[in-house]
Amino acid sequence: MIKELTVDLGERSYPIYIGEGLLENIASYFEKHGISKGSPLLIVTDGQVGPHYLEGVLERLGTAGYQAASYTVTAGEKSKSLAVLEDVIGAALEAGLDRKSAVVALGGGVVGDLAGFVAASYMRGVRFIQIPTTILAHDSSVGGKVAVNHPLAKNIIGAFHQPEMVLYDTSTLQSLPDREVRGGLSEMIKHGLIWDADFAYWCEDNAERLVGLDPEALQYGLYKGCSVKAAVVSQDERENDLRAILNLGHTIGHALEAVAGYGELTHGEAIAIGMVGAARLSVKLGHPEEIHTITKRIFEKFGLPVRIPAHLDTDAIMRAMMHDKKFGEGRMVYIVPVAIGKVEINKQMDPKLVREIVDELKQED
Amino acid sequence: MIKELTVDLGERSYPIYIGEGLLENIASYFEKHGISKGSPLLIVTDGQVGPHYLEGVLERLGTAGYQAASYTVTAGEKSKSLAVLEDVIGAALEAGLDRKSAVVALGGGVVGDLAGFVAASYMRGVRFIQIPTTILAHDSSVGGKVAVNHPLAKNIIGAFHQPEMVLYDTSTLQSLPDREVRGGLSEMIKHGLIWDADFAYWCEDNAERLVGLDPEALQYGLYKGCSVKAAVVSQDERENDLRAILNLGHTIGHALEAVAGYGELTHGEAIAIGMVGAARLSVKLGHPEEIHTITKRIFEKFGLPVRIPAHLDTDAIMRAMMHDKKFGEGRMVYIVPVAIGKVEINKQMDPKLVREIVDELKQED
Ligand SMILES: NC(=O)c1ccc[n+]([C@@H]2O[C@H](COP(=O)([O-])OP(=O)(O)OC[C@H]3O[C@@H](n4cnc5c(N)ncnc54)[C@H](O)[C@@H]3O)[C@@H](O)[C@H]2O)c1
Ligand SMILES: NC(=O)c1ccc[n+]([C@@H]2O[C@H](COP(=O)([O-])OP(=O)(O)OC[C@H]3O[C@@H](n4cnc5c(N)ncnc54)[C@H](O)[C@@H]3O)[C@@H](O)[C@H]2O)c1
Ligand SMILES: [Zn+2]
Ligand SMILES: [Zn+2]
Repeated sequence: MIKELTVDLGERSYPIYIGEGLLENIASYFEKHGISKGSPLLIVTDGQVGPHYLEGVLERLGTAGYQAASYTVTAGEKSKSLAVLEDVIGAALEAGLDRKSAVVALGGGVVGDLAGFVAASYMRGVRFIQIPTTILAHDSSVGGKVAVNHPLAKNIIGAFHQPEMVLYDTSTLQSLPDREVRGGLSEMIKHGLIWDADFAYWCEDNAERLVGLDPEALQYGLYKGCSVKAAVVSQDERENDLRAILNLGHTIGHALEAVAGYGELTHGEAIAIGMVGAARLSVKLGHPEEIHTITKRIFEKFGLPVRIPAHLDTDAIMRAMMHDKKFGEGRMVYIVPVAIGKVEINKQMDPKLVREIVDELKQED
Repeated sequence: MIKELTVDLGERSYPIYIGEGLLENIASYFEKHGISKGSPLLIVTDGQVGPHYLEGVLERLGTAGYQAASYTVTAGEKSKSLAVLEDVIGAALEAGLDRKSAVVALGGGVVGDLAGFVAASYMRGVRFIQIPTTILAHDSSVGGKVAVNHPLAKNIIGAFHQPEMVLYDTSTLQSLPDREVRGGLSEMIKHGLIWDADFAYWCEDNAERLVGLDPEALQYGLYKGCSVKAAVVSQDERENDLRAILNLGHTIGHALEAVAGYGELTHGEAIAIGMVGAARLSVKLGHPEEIHTITKRIFEKFGLPVRIPAHLDTDAIMRAMMHDKKFGEGRMVYIVPVAIGKVEINKQMDPKLVREIVDELKQED
């Protein structure tokens, strides 16, 4: 059974389909959504995903009468660059993509962000389809934020460009390395923590099934996670306000990723620590103690880290946070839980308090 | 006296101000339009424009309390690249531009297109201000098309990103080389030919004053030219249909630029020849002979070329046109005048007819 939900954005609304083996019918989804057979498509994937799923996708589309070219980038964050963007656009030109063509992302968040910016900028914008193949991508494939990195800053060059549809085939997740699985689940839990306490507790209760890639649990978890993301994005497409709550755990998380040197901690691991930190901060501000104990307990159930590796320097972490641009005149914008399933945007956070939390997170037992 | 007109695009509407010495009051325009003094600005210019006007702009903005950084690119089309885009975005990051900042283009169409795509993509979009310094830029600064080039295709990577305002100071045109003046006037005449016969005849009657950079004639001509562009863009922002009429003369024009090797013919010269060609085609299709004679007479008055240099190969020109993507199944989309001041979009043009025209344009007496 395929689950379906809609990202509600007026004229730019689109569906998310989630289910086991859904890509076997990829062509019928393309047909249903009026993707033109008269104009070539470009499938963008990476060197780890392509070998598993590209051939099947090309074959099914070809059989149905689509003219699909492909371009494979090197796996990893480094491919989110303007240099690789130029290569992908070269491939689009060589394949003859025109204004009625679509660009298709087959991969995780890296491929989605890159291919999405190709779709946003090629001929000033063509259609875009997301085929996410990581758990983390239940976050990145929904909401229309697309971007590449600059040597001086992540995700700084981009656009808002919503896809036509998101095709989530949970069977592709079976080949995902375990660390990527847990990292992606960290964002899924985040969606519970910011919006839906029942879902957060459901995650806790189903940790084993999720980590073990049980298809039914995955389908439900991704459906709920995408629903939260969709609800938030529908209310604030361009991050004027509410959308900021999606950054729960990310202020400390991004700083940890930067200081640890990308690689020691995955993004999902870093934000797990960050969410435990935000829960601590919440308690410090007078909210119930259990926000911290429960948050920590959930992440531990998933084998995700809940403390800052002791060798990471507090000063360095604080400096990295300053760079993260969430500052305004000596005060920080900070997403703070006020209960399980509910957060607030605090625009007056005292960096001294955050520093205390960082120190405590090294001692977290 | 400053002339003002509005580009009518609903929420994205914006004013164009045109007048002699207008930049002396640049800060008051910025204030009037709520450009924030709390966030840094980035002025983008090029190596030929900067030495004339950058210091004055920075000084006036600084005096008014704006924090303005600048970045100067090499003059010329080569700066419309992703590599230069990355450099400009680096400068924006170093200057600390945030989501409330504005990017300002001080220059011709090259700087406008490049800086505009910076504004469209930096942090997924910040405010943008156009300060055009060429006559051609009365065309390029209005309408929100921004882009850089790919090694395989011009203007293929870009966005629709409307400016907040266009500040046209006609005194900056005094330093413009004569060939750039005439080239820019070619687009001005185009605006008469596609939309407004009276304006086309006014251009003819005032050729000498325009080429001689008479401030009053320039102001009126730029005002009328911008008005036509604004009217067309208001009706079809994203070039679904009507906006294509702005391509009068450009099918042959682009092909001539490509075959001559960029440099032999300026863009304005190439499209002058192209517009004479389109007029010939019109007569061939049964429209009045005078469309051709009058069109040719106007361009000759401006010292613009009306024939294809004999050494350019007809086959090469036709091949370049095929690449220009205005084709659909053996037929071309072609903008054809049906009277002075009126054109139609012909989607069924026979390339054989176009080939005849190219040959005749070499013999044009
Ligand atoms: N646009 C947004 O709203 C948004 C939100 C969150 C994150 N992001 C971005 O997403 C990116 C991270 O996404 P990610 O974690 O999916 O990274 P990723 O795309 O790099 O995937 C992680 C790794 O898993 C491999 N992989 C992917 N799918 C696989 C599969 N099915 N089988 C085997 N291997 C597979 C990839 O090749 C890669 O090596 C970051 O660049 C981040 O900035 C974007
Ligand atoms: N966005 C659009 O809708 C649109 C429309 C038409 C053309 N264009 C683009 O515009 C570009 C051409 O514009 P352009 O002709 O203004 O080119 P340009 O910006 O290169 O300027 C032409 C030359 O004149 C110099 N210059 C500019 N202003 C000057 C001044 N006041 N004094 C002295 N020198 C000066 C420049 O340094 C350059 O060398 C092309 O890249 C074309 O693709 C865009
Ligand atoms: Zn994240
Ligand atoms: Zn032109």
